Amino acid sequence: MSDVKKAVILLSGGLDSATVLAIARDLGYACYCLSFVYGQRHDGEVGYAKNIAAQLGASEHRIATIDLATFGGSALTDRDIAVPAYGGSEIDIPITYVPARNTIFLSYALAWAEVLGALDVFIGVNAVDYSGYPDCRPEFVTAFESMANLATRRGVEGERLTIHTPLIHHSKAEIIRLGLDKGLDYAETVSCYQLSADGLACGMCDSCGLRRAGFLEAGVDDPTQYVQGGF
Amino acid sequence: MSDVKKAVILLSGGLDSATVLAIARDLGYACYCLSFVYGQRHDGEVGYAKNIAAQLGASEHRIATIDLATFGGSALTDRDIAVPAYGGSEIDIPITYVPARNTIFLSYALAWAEVLGALDVFIGVNAVDYSGYPDCRPEFVTAFESMANLATRRGVEGERLTIHTPLIHHSKAEIIRLGLDKGLDYAETVSCYQLSADGLACGMCDSCGLRRAGFLEAGVDDPTQYVQGGF
Repeated sequence: MSDVKKAVILLSGGLDSATVLAIARDLGYACYCLSFVYGQRHDGEVGYAKNIAAQLGASEHRIATIDLATFGGSALTDRDIAVPAYGGSEIDIPITYVPARNTIFLSYALAWAEVLGALDVFIGVNAVDYSGYPDCRPEFVTAFESMANLATRRGVEGERLTIHTPLIHHSKAEIIRLGLDKGLDYAETVSCYQLSADGLACGMCDSCGLRRAGFLEAGVDDPTQYVQGGF
Repeated sequence: MSDVKKAVILLSGGLDSATVLAIARDLGYACYCLSFVYGQRHDGEVGYAKNIAAQLGASEHRIATIDLATFGGSALTDRDIAVPAYGGSEIDIPITYVPARNTIFLSYALAWAEVLGALDVFIGVNAVDYSGYPDCRPEFVTAFESMANLATRRGVEGERLTIHTPLIHHSKAEIIRLGLDKGLDYAETVSCYQLSADGLACGMCDSCGLRRAGFLEAGVDDPTQYVQGGF
């Protein structure tokens, strides 16, 4: 048995998941990063994920190609549904919600964790400055963890898998300060739902809006490169 | 609103899931069948699933291509691990267990159900004559259902999704009798872990063994076509 504990880190290429990777690394985990090409219109984020994983010394980075666009139902995977502009605080679940996305991502993480012998999975969900997605809430993560421990060989054998959500109660500004303290360069991350072909953020969608507001509140420069006219 | 309720049916092409489809159809559901090409060595089963879905009048049949072989760890997805012979009753979880497979399959079913507006998902898991997989147990399914109702828009809005497991407490012989009563032709199904290129069952693996024993116990002819030397 190696002394280094392995963890699976869900890494999108965005601000939150990059911060989570830095946190897991600083906790001493060997980090196995997992990204998805799932039919998202902003699949350019995966290129950012690749760079971040390399820069932060991930033990491995896998990119799984899975088809969520087949099912549609979201502005992020259906080109016929427009990405709405940033609206500040929405109460309803917005059209950018991808049905069961985090459930599917965590299920793949669970599969890989079991094969790796990892008992720790990290995900950058956040229930403060977030888009109101049901699968970002603490009660969802707790329920997933309970299910996961009944789903797998290791669970049956009495080992417990933990789903870590180190950002769940942080504001976006707090997350940014945390990452900067760990030496993260947020210019290497991207949070836009409709990245331009050359990897620039739109500066208009909900995700850009939340990110932008976070930098403003943290009182640090926003290093994001926006398309002309974005912010 | 249509009066016909929609259900998502996980359909492998095997004996159990075909029986589940017949049950859901007879309950009056419009059946949306979902199959997976996931890197399984017996992906010929998907052709059987196609025929069954058509014969039983499914409203739609989708085949999602997803990559579970990437993670390995199972004789069903890793060609370097041999499929073991039927051993009667194993206590340990066998090497044919695919890490988190049912979790992943149910997560996709959840995504599709949400887009369809379906509140019912059917899966043919069985905890009697089964291979000892952790994700076939009632406690796993119950935990998945709880999680699913926290994961989705419909759950947040107060609608409850149900995961139906009509076979979970039936013996293989009971399942076969149930399907025959519903007019199922089991020659159109296949349960083998290592189907031959021309779609014949090996007659040696755990899944063939359980199926064979079921027909014997039910006292009906086994219509399965085996390779020469199998049974």
